[in-house]
Amino acid sequence: MSKDLGIQAKKEDDFSNWYTEVVQKAGLADYTKVSGCMVFMPRSYEIWEKIQGFLDKKFKKAGVKNAYFPLFIPESLLTREKEHVEGFTPEVAWVTHSGDTKLNERLAVRPTSETIMYDSYSQWIRSHRDLPLRLNQWCSVVRWEFSHPVPFLRTREFLWQEGHTVFATKEEADKEVLEMLDYYAEAYEEVLAIPTIKGIKSEKEKFAGALYTTTLEIVLPNGKAIQGCTSHQLGQNFSKAFNISFTDDQEKNQFAWQNSWGFTTRSIGVMIMMHSDNKGLVIPPKAASLHAVIVPILVGDKKEEVLKKCKELKKHLKHIEVTLDDRDYTPGWKYNDWEMKGVPLRIELGPKDMEKDQVVIVRRDTGKKEFVPISKADERAKEMLEEMQKDLFDKAKKHLEDSIVSVHSEKELLNVLDNKKIAKASWCNFRECEDGIKEKTGAKSLCMPFDESAPKPGTKCLCGKDAKVVMLFGRSY
Amino acid sequence: MSKDLGIQAKKEDDFSNWYTEVVQKAGLADYTKVSGCMVFMPRSYEIWEKIQGFLDKKFKKAGVKNAYFPLFIPESLLTREKEHVEGFTPEVAWVTHSGDTKLNERLAVRPTSETIMYDSYSQWIRSHRDLPLRLNQWCSVVRWEFSHPVPFLRTREFLWQEGHTVFATKEEADKEVLEMLDYYAEAYEEVLAIPTIKGIKSEKEKFAGALYTTTLEIVLPNGKAIQGCTSHQLGQNFSKAFNISFTDDQEKNQFAWQNSWGFTTRSIGVMIMMHSDNKGLVIPPKAASLHAVIVPILVGDKKEEVLKKCKELKKHLKHIEVTLDDRDYTPGWKYNDWEMKGVPLRIELGPKDMEKDQVVIVRRDTGKKEFVPISKADERAKEMLEEMQKDLFDKAKKHLEDSIVSVHSEKELLNVLDNKKIAKASWCNFRECEDGIKEKTGAKSLCMPFDESAPKPGTKCLCGKDAKVVMLFGRSY
Repeated sequence: MSKDLGIQAKKEDDFSNWYTEVVQKAGLADYTKVSGCMVFMPRSYEIWEKIQGFLDKKFKKAGVKNAYFPLFIPESLLTREKEHVEGFTPEVAWVTHSGDTKLNERLAVRPTSETIMYDSYSQWIRSHRDLPLRLNQWCSVVRWEFSHPVPFLRTREFLWQEGHTVFATKEEADKEVLEMLDYYAEAYEEVLAIPTIKGIKSEKEKFAGALYTTTLEIVLPNGKAIQGCTSHQLGQNFSKAFNISFTDDQEKNQFAWQNSWGFTTRSIGVMIMMHSDNKGLVIPPKAASLHAVIVPILVGDKKEEVLKKCKELKKHLKHIEVTLDDRDYTPGWKYNDWEMKGVPLRIELGPKDMEKDQVVIVRRDTGKKEFVPISKADERAKEMLEEMQKDLFDKAKKHLEDSIVSVHSEKELLNVLDNKKIAKASWCNFRECEDGIKEKTGAKSLCMPFDESAPKPGTKCLCGKDAKVVMLFGRSY
Repeated sequence: MSKDLGIQAKKEDDFSNWYTEVVQKAGLADYTKVSGCMVFMPRSYEIWEKIQGFLDKKFKKAGVKNAYFPLFIPESLLTREKEHVEGFTPEVAWVTHSGDTKLNERLAVRPTSETIMYDSYSQWIRSHRDLPLRLNQWCSVVRWEFSHPVPFLRTREFLWQEGHTVFATKEEADKEVLEMLDYYAEAYEEVLAIPTIKGIKSEKEKFAGALYTTTLEIVLPNGKAIQGCTSHQLGQNFSKAFNISFTDDQEKNQFAWQNSWGFTTRSIGVMIMMHSDNKGLVIPPKAASLHAVIVPILVGDKKEEVLKKCKELKKHLKHIEVTLDDRDYTPGWKYNDWEMKGVPLRIELGPKDMEKDQVVIVRRDTGKKEFVPISKADERAKEMLEEMQKDLFDKAKKHLEDSIVSVHSEKELLNVLDNKKIAKASWCNFRECEDGIKEKTGAKSLCMPFDESAPKPGTKCLCGKDAKVVMLFGRSY
């Protein structure tokens, strides 16, 4: 394997090739014989397990239960909600045969599970006592896109969780949409060290079949925006299509209110793009399974003693996950190898350090070296991981703040986009205007941020109409 | 929902309908519009999470890493190993279209992942330094069987883990096959309170493409046997078909040795069948997410005080997972409801108990009541859970020991089967004999148990030929 070759492309010059190289050379993903589908190799799956652990705990504490529904959806179910079917069927992978036998009805490989789950829900829910019903599943989904695949960001199969909940009232559903968006923001901020913008999607960009879609938008180092995850209020669209109704406490029959919300392995791609550099992967410590590598400096006649000391050191480092690299390579080769793989800390120990009872701890993100007494190494390494986590977030936060520029004309908008920034505009909230912007500039509407107040009366949109909302526009994945 | 109706069928009279009723009324699984596929509802998915937690920890400690490979396998890959393709293609679900477009090559929905994983392995493995390679994935698989579906035991989609490992030598691979079988046995014994028989499958019953298959066999209360899980030595069959070769330390090129091993949600069905009774589900405490339910006895004028005391009790029970059932139903209705759901302990607290500063703790499996001082309730509940776990295992162990009967003729074999037992026979190890037994008695060969020594020279098989091995025969799922 080509681990000994460094990353050739530069992040600042050729972002796209740089990303692909990091993904492959850090051993995160590999292509397969199934076009557009990739292997999640152990080094990326570990990151997914960290995210799963974080979110699953939040969901369970909130009262959401895990379940598992079939991978297949009969065509007649998939097509029951009109907007939903239009959004998904062009990308569906269809099972038509089992063995040599043609099936009576085609089965969709789940692109998302609303329709198969809600058919069960309609049978389980009878009374207001059965509500709320809040289920989640961890699984993979398939969307047979024809655009160029990008590892983690756009592949035909990806991993996610999808929560599907049912409430008696709109108010409860509205509240949960934001509760889940908060958990997602915490996963991005606390685990992946990535700040996000919370907001609501335009009618054009909302989920097929939703009443409205809330989103976390992220600005990547190349100036492109990306949707980090979404939390949808489905209103009564699906409950009417699937007859999910209940008898309320007045013995009246009502249709239920529903949400769905999902977080995908795309987040791993966002993490890689955000923090990594020209030496390879940078993993925020909270997302890392391995926190540090001990590299022994084996020179002169002290080899055995140094190796023994390194083994003692490994036992001493109780508060972090650590490995000792005693392979038969030079220290320099090992430095490059572990930098490529993104291990947060490197701990060097050689004959001179032994004399001084110290180790050298090097941070992956900054390259900053610290000489630390061996007796303090465990404590200091733990602190350095916390500092690194915070610094990565702060750096990404500053980038986000620097990336958003207010615009008042189409010319300004184009200028901002060409400078790899995101535009904030007072906007009319009309579909034609949105389509026009896309056509003229390549930018999509990202979201109406929750923390922006409505434009003052009389404010104009870029198109000249009255502005109703504040919208972010950006080129995006 | 029909929770208020008890189980109608009796376990001893009508095992099959009893099982289906327990599964449905305890809220474990439900049928769907996809024929042969079911929903894993939260109460069964929780059990799967317990099993996953137990096994995943063992795998990781052993050095196995998790990964995720595509759901789809191109037909050309699936059919590359001759025996494997014959074993699996009749049951494959085929994807032929994406949206309206016909695919160039059909894609199998994974029935098992040897072929898609080993295509990647062949590219990743070059040198003996790349070995061993030990990966595992948690996912679902699809086998479009046409036999009558049985929830958990036989459905067209089920959940499992599949480990796929590569070694330089046969010895290392042989050793790991048994290491994994040991972990599986521990999961059955320690989590699900089920004893197993470790052994090796006949040539007829081994995995399609394996050198040999090891198995855990279990005897159910209805006298039927079931394969609990399998761990296969694949030999060099796949490494030759997929060209998984490496340069050894003598610079010689060699084909690798491979294993695959899997544990499925079938284990949940085995657990249900083994321990449950005519009142409903019985869950061994180690497989239960909820250990105890507090049922307040709200009679007379002490209602508020009792409820308050129950809330204090809940806080006091720190070492177990507990819920307080304060719903507006009678205690008797609640007893039935929680017995149906299989919660291991019921804790009753009424006005009289309050006076005596005690609670009543009732075990789900035996119905045995204990009066326990409130101050000791936490400690005693924890002990009772341990006792229950042990007693369930011991009872199942006794059943297993009572179930195996030595036979020396076909007549004896038939007799043993009709008495709902498993037969142990000295056997010739010929396929024709095995086929003949199946035809005449309905019994399949189960395994050659590891703890049986070979028959003495001169011992005859049921068919009259010389006996070579000891084989268990039983009617089975």
